[in-house]
Amino acid sequence: MIGIVGGAGPLAGNDLFYKIIEETAALSDQEHLPVLLWSDPTKIPDRTEFLEGKVKQNPAVPITEIFLKLERNGARLGAIPCNTAHAPVIFEEIRTGLQKVGSQLQLISIIEETVRYLAQQYPSGTPVGVLSTTGTWKRRIYADPLEAAGFEVLTPEAEEQSLVHQAIYHKGFGVKASGTQITGKAKEILYGQADTLIDQGAEVVILGCTEIPLVIREAFYRQKRMVDTVRVLARALIKAYAPDKLKH
Amino acid sequence: MIGIVGGAGPLAGNDLFYKIIEETAALSDQEHLPVLLWSDPTKIPDRTEFLEGKVKQNPAVPITEIFLKLERNGARLGAIPCNTAHAPVIFEEIRTGLQKVGSQLQLISIIEETVRYLAQQYPSGTPVGVLSTTGTWKRRIYADPLEAAGFEVLTPEAEEQSLVHQAIYHKGFGVKASGTQITGKAKEILYGQADTLIDQGAEVVILGCTEIPLVIREAFYRQKRMVDTVRVLARALIKAYAPDKLKH
Repeated sequence: MIGIVGGAGPLAGNDLFYKIIEETAALSDQEHLPVLLWSDPTKIPDRTEFLEGKVKQNPAVPITEIFLKLERNGARLGAIPCNTAHAPVIFEEIRTGLQKVGSQLQLISIIEETVRYLAQQYPSGTPVGVLSTTGTWKRRIYADPLEAAGFEVLTPEAEEQSLVHQAIYHKGFGVKASGTQITGKAKEILYGQADTLIDQGAEVVILGCTEIPLVIREAFYRQKRMVDTVRVLARALIKAYAPDKLKH
Repeated sequence: MIGIVGGAGPLAGNDLFYKIIEETAALSDQEHLPVLLWSDPTKIPDRTEFLEGKVKQNPAVPITEIFLKLERNGARLGAIPCNTAHAPVIFEEIRTGLQKVGSQLQLISIIEETVRYLAQQYPSGTPVGVLSTTGTWKRRIYADPLEAAGFEVLTPEAEEQSLVHQAIYHKGFGVKASGTQITGKAKEILYGQADTLIDQGAEVVILGCTEIPLVIREAFYRQKRMVDTVRVLARALIKAYAPDKLKH
């Protein structure tokens, strides 16, 4: 089965599963891929809060436990649709934790897959914008591998970054609070920041937090591709599990 | 956790989880309910084909196994978002199979919850339309309990029923084949049959197959309520698991 650690957040886990269904070539229920989605948000502390030192427990600990449960129940591939959870201090801890107990689970990284996708689609030197949580921004979770792959990276300034983070987390208007009823304020901030990155020269913008594609839903905005990292991950999982089932 | 047997079909399982998130009062990831979604469509034969004698294996067997796996992994409530799987010859077999091995899992039935919802909202004698698969239609999965609850039941004639079934199953234009890219033909058939039931006097229409709310998305059509049985089930699960988290 394909194992998904959901709950970080719940909608992102649901969205990844939805996109796996969408990207699978199947004409009946039985032709779809087996997916096990473990969404226990109560167990996983906020990733950005950990990176900022506001919570002590490394989310890697419960995430590793859930990956192991997925494996014990039949998953041979695993992924977590949360970009911030891919900060090396979290994600490498997960990899180490799994290796330590002899896990055979193949982890698919949303960051690695997104950088690979960009490297296939765009020439070296292309200016790439990144919208993300402040955790991802501060730890340069996208910026470092993108630069290593030869891209020019554009991200919001500190003040604008704080607005992007609020569009995701604010208890009044943020996506994690509003759920599916996306607020005008969250839209205004995220499209506004996409505008800024495009004005600064971005040829493509990475929606580098799994909540952002719930707001910016177009594949193209102002003729620039908006890279839905959840869809990239969905396609990578299908390709790794059953390449003949991947839609063109 | 809330355990969901998905895969029958995959989109219906995804949709139930989506509606659980939508109907939960939560302002952060951590306030959402723990959900385990087991979507292994390869294991579950088509329910209508079983009811029509076209496949021999009772889907109850693999469904029961999955419910037990959900329970072993921490689920204390379970549901399967597939109306046809609630035919007594399948669903009672699941109940019996669970009891036989001493399962404590509390099964929530989409049919019982939908009939309960109608009985709370509409007076006895109200004409209720039902759109469903041919399996549900033939076995009177909704008609019998609705009549027992005092409602007048309206369903399509045999020829129209076959069209409704095709809107769900047809390999070219059916929802199970098109996935999220709903075809004009499926829309035309399902809205057309809703029209017929309303013209015949239906005051409310039950979307009695979990694929139908993926096409008819409005809460009201021609001023009649379209009862989304997946949303009814989502709310029943939240109410049973954590009543204080149910949105008003």
